[in-house]
Amino acid sequence: MKLSAIAQEVRDNTGLPFTPRDAERVLAAALTSEDIWRIIDLADVPVMALCSALRAMERAGWLDFSRGRVALTPAGREVVREAGIAPALELRCGRCGGRGVELGPVAQIAEKFRKIAASRPEAIQQFDQGYVTEDSTLYRIAYLWNRGDLVGKELLVLGDDDLVSLAAALTRAPKRVVMLDIDERLVDFVRTVARQEGLEVEVLQHDLREPLPQGLLGAFDTFFCDPTESLRGFLAFAHRGLSALRGPGSAGYLGLTRREASLSKWRDIQRELLAAGAAITDLRDDFHDYVNWPYIETMRSWEHLPVKRVPGREEPWYRSALIRIELVEPARVENAPLSGDIFTDPEAATT
Amino acid sequence: MKLSAIAQEVRDNTGLPFTPRDAERVLAAALTSEDIWRIIDLADVPVMALCSALRAMERAGWLDFSRGRVALTPAGREVVREAGIAPALELRCGRCGGRGVELGPVAQIAEKFRKIAASRPEAIQQFDQGYVTEDSTLYRIAYLWNRGDLVGKELLVLGDDDLVSLAAALTRAPKRVVMLDIDERLVDFVRTVARQEGLEVEVLQHDLREPLPQGLLGAFDTFFCDPTESLRGFLAFAHRGLSALRGPGSAGYLGLTRREASLSKWRDIQRELLAAGAAITDLRDDFHDYVNWPYIETMRSWEHLPVKRVPGREEPWYRSALIRIELVEPARVENAPLSGDIFTDPEAATT
Repeated sequence: MKLSAIAQEVRDNTGLPFTPRDAERVLAAALTSEDIWRIIDLADVPVMALCSALRAMERAGWLDFSRGRVALTPAGREVVREAGIAPALELRCGRCGGRGVELGPVAQIAEKFRKIAASRPEAIQQFDQGYVTEDSTLYRIAYLWNRGDLVGKELLVLGDDDLVSLAAALTRAPKRVVMLDIDERLVDFVRTVARQEGLEVEVLQHDLREPLPQGLLGAFDTFFCDPTESLRGFLAFAHRGLSALRGPGSAGYLGLTRREASLSKWRDIQRELLAAGAAITDLRDDFHDYVNWPYIETMRSWEHLPVKRVPGREEPWYRSALIRIELVEPARVENAPLSGDIFTDPEAATT
Repeated sequence: MKLSAIAQEVRDNTGLPFTPRDAERVLAAALTSEDIWRIIDLADVPVMALCSALRAMERAGWLDFSRGRVALTPAGREVVREAGIAPALELRCGRCGGRGVELGPVAQIAEKFRKIAASRPEAIQQFDQGYVTEDSTLYRIAYLWNRGDLVGKELLVLGDDDLVSLAAALTRAPKRVVMLDIDERLVDFVRTVARQEGLEVEVLQHDLREPLPQGLLGAFDTFFCDPTESLRGFLAFAHRGLSALRGPGSAGYLGLTRREASLSKWRDIQRELLAAGAAITDLRDDFHDYVNWPYIETMRSWEHLPVKRVPGREEPWYRSALIRIELVEPARVENAPLSGDIFTDPEAATT
């Protein structure tokens, strides 16, 4: 079957996991839109593998990129018809953006948070930054509230270009908010805003490759973390979060994307989270929409894109899932130092 | 700390997993409602453990059941204040019911499906039945559509008191729909409706303790299953589903509840699903609302309830998550026969 041949070609050329179903998802996306970013968004296949698949489909005569669009050729349409592939259809709820929750009491801080975020530091490539929309951060806080992980709780935010610490503190609901980030600009920003607004946020510049300071271990009810997507980097950040939790009943929140992580990597990550003593209680894909960062044209996947167009700032294509885990046993993780590059792996697209 | 003492007492008396956080969830629910069913719904703790916790809190002088309500005493309010426990707050989206999706094209079959479901066989205890609301079934179908698991796909429904096979077939979207159930009444009902409405549903009476018929193995793109909640029963049904899938890229949907399964059991189930070759792609809790079954007063947990009131038929307290898994490797499961009681385990509440 032809989709298998494309999948084999992608695997051979990239060394990445890629199933015939992934090839099908690419074609389903191409049936819905001719725009490269919309296809990346809809296909839910890692960008690096997707680019390889698009090229393989061009070589097979199914796709044509000559007009700056991803266009199905008559041969491509025939493949789609034979395989019975339907256009990708998004049925995201128009009210909650597919997240399933209302802002509720968090709506009261929305305006203030947006005003604060307007002067945030811009995302930089050095730390694999790229922040979510202000709505995404606000809905995150609502989700924590809804799950009993915010009010009266001690919250640790590991890496905070999304300004979760400020949004959480603005609600005045948590008992304690601590924010760690490697980036001095962010640390300064959060510290300054907290002082101006009278918010209690403890701010610490910290490189998550280093062990957590002793005083933060076993001290929190909830952690939040939107890790870098390499397997090693993701697990390092997740393990730092787990080591900061008090124990059974404490919860962790993590962002995880399909754009830079195959489902094989998702599975590896999930196995490690379970092995560390947690259950997965929630996994809501496409919960987070990202604002396009200014380094699109220097990111790793740019040169591989068959159609090159810089997307608008508020034209979301990079989305990620919100995952909530809860410890059912004391966390089994080490708080050891990590060395070397933790940002890059074969599926990395944005570093 | 007092919550730990309650948790210890519950564990000692029931042998079930129960954390101080679970005790906190019970009190958070009791702050929001005095109604026993609403508390069961909000607390997200297995009913059997919850009943034990309510009794322990009564003995501690925190709760009083004498007026047919679950009332916090002044001593209970003091515990809540000291521990900083906030009322349980649900922020479910009012439009999608927290599911995150629109019905989209599935809305066209809603009226017809509701008309058909009006004459469905009633749920019976013998097979641990209890069906979801018609909305829940319709949203399930929308979810499958949204994830590319419906249109042009071959779908197997394992156990079908929710009438998923009929709803799927009504859309005319799948390539093939096969439904298995042990209950002759359901098999007859689906067969009769399918004939009357000209729907293509293959119907087979089958006891899922028995291996799947050879012809169904490796033959489907998607399976749907809302298993019984005992660990052994859940995994048996899930493994039957997995053995029916074609291979990598094929998807399975499962219902899983907090009402009869602790997060420890959730973790055990998740580990087995991952070990079988799947990744978890979606986990949306409270996706399914159940219609109250007629055997409430003979279910296992009834005698343990500290306040006995038969809930109204459409007064949902039993909810479950929708879990989607996708194979990233060929399924590693056995298609072996199972003997004995697969419905009961220590956390079972409704059998």
